[in-house]
Amino acid sequence: MRLQSFEHGGRQGWGIVERDAVRDMTDALPGIGSIKALLERDALDAARAAATSAPLVEAAALRPLPVIPDPAKILCCGLNYHEHRIETHNPEVAHPTLFVRFADAQIGHGAAIERPPETRMLDYEAELAVVIGRAGRRIARAAAMEHVAGYACYNDVSVRDWQKHTTQMTPGKNFPTTGPFGPWLVTRDEIADLAPLRIQCRLNGRVMQDARLGDMIFDVPRLIEYISTFTPLSPGDVILTGTPGGVGVRRDPQIFLQPGDRVEVEIEAVGLLANPVV
Amino acid sequence: MRLQSFEHGGRQGWGIVERDAVRDMTDALPGIGSIKALLERDALDAARAAATSAPLVEAAALRPLPVIPDPAKILCCGLNYHEHRIETHNPEVAHPTLFVRFADAQIGHGAAIERPPETRMLDYEAELAVVIGRAGRRIARAAAMEHVAGYACYNDVSVRDWQKHTTQMTPGKNFPTTGPFGPWLVTRDEIADLAPLRIQCRLNGRVMQDARLGDMIFDVPRLIEYISTFTPLSPGDVILTGTPGGVGVRRDPQIFLQPGDRVEVEIEAVGLLANPVV
Repeated sequence: MRLQSFEHGGRQGWGIVERDAVRDMTDALPGIGSIKALLERDALDAARAAATSAPLVEAAALRPLPVIPDPAKILCCGLNYHEHRIETHNPEVAHPTLFVRFADAQIGHGAAIERPPETRMLDYEAELAVVIGRAGRRIARAAAMEHVAGYACYNDVSVRDWQKHTTQMTPGKNFPTTGPFGPWLVTRDEIADLAPLRIQCRLNGRVMQDARLGDMIFDVPRLIEYISTFTPLSPGDVILTGTPGGVGVRRDPQIFLQPGDRVEVEIEAVGLLANPVV
Repeated sequence: MRLQSFEHGGRQGWGIVERDAVRDMTDALPGIGSIKALLERDALDAARAAATSAPLVEAAALRPLPVIPDPAKILCCGLNYHEHRIETHNPEVAHPTLFVRFADAQIGHGAAIERPPETRMLDYEAELAVVIGRAGRRIARAAAMEHVAGYACYNDVSVRDWQKHTTQMTPGKNFPTTGPFGPWLVTRDEIADLAPLRIQCRLNGRVMQDARLGDMIFDVPRLIEYISTFTPLSPGDVILTGTPGGVGVRRDPQIFLQPGDRVEVEIEAVGLLANPVV
């Protein structure tokens, strides 16, 4: 099942994607007006059952929103692909490198990434986003996947100069519109194995990053185990799993996002997230 | 005015502190059931006017909650006092070092700091918390104080080994119960000048940290200016302004928080925040 958050007719809602149309589920289940509420109520089966009687809306009539517009927590793993760790001259580490994004920097599929006037060093980072479905603390690795609702594409757009102001990455990872998250959530049951899936970033059609999800240093169960040790996870929380090699700042010559660019994050079996830069 | 969040009779509320009693304001103003809502409505004057007719409750009958139990953003400045920067062997920086705390790690005055089984390296950090009263983006330094609602004490309790797992401090700053925040919010109008105010941390009565707020490297207006450049600030957001020298991990021998300890953060003209360790 592919679940999408959107704005339609001036209000926020959510639906189930069917080819080029979307079942508008916003009013289908009492008290479940968002994907986060759906996950909190553990109501995926009820949604599937109610879908056929929900109104079918053309995808073009909807404005996609971030898959989860208001996650309580967005935990981001840096340096989680060997190639990217090496290109950034970082040593091997025994633990995931974790920083935090705020929800209000997120945008949906198709929305514009705005280059802020404070920088010329705006960079892309294709990432797999994992959305938590079931709450937990100190989740064991073996049970971790049961806490996953599904997957989406994320572009962890980074302001490189602000990221490097100090040791902590926070300022470079939270400028508004730097968190494209979409186009939809693919539920966990649709993907038997993440490892062979290809993840790409394309800039104006040119492939800039190209890897397999199995290249991650810390895999999804390990990330959930580690993170849930120090902070409880709740439905709708988002874990960004890091970006492969090939980021713009480490190229020679460097490549940064410019107004007029179009940047795409595509993950096999998950989806294609495309955003213009303005 | 001193504003307190609390639990009373099984529900959350807020009030205005008067000596050893509290005016329970939870039902005094329509739609304003929390300090955050009060700030969002910019209703401090209305609260002052309505206080005399609000029920007076003995302070002992209330369980204090974090001053703002659910801030949308908690931005924490590390290494913001010269003495602490030097004791941690960090070089001078041109920008504030910022990490993020999640709201669910916060506790109120008097509540227990639980040492997690994953560590023996639990450490105190006395800090001034600044609560945002008025929303803003790209706030100029000269106008920054107009966006401040007031001040409180914060103990940025840190799990030192987890803080040092990687370059990013997130894991060591987010274990549940490691964010004592209280006992109340002192509104900005009560403090003409922060600089001369003394900040102390005491462990079982022994002074461990002792400085003046004027010793900060980046003062409150500069922090607001820098932070609001990359992320919008909203009413109820919290900025932690860093801790002075004297933390336990940098002592010889090292001193860590143990079950049975009592740790106090006191800031002149602001208040005394005390918490036991279990």
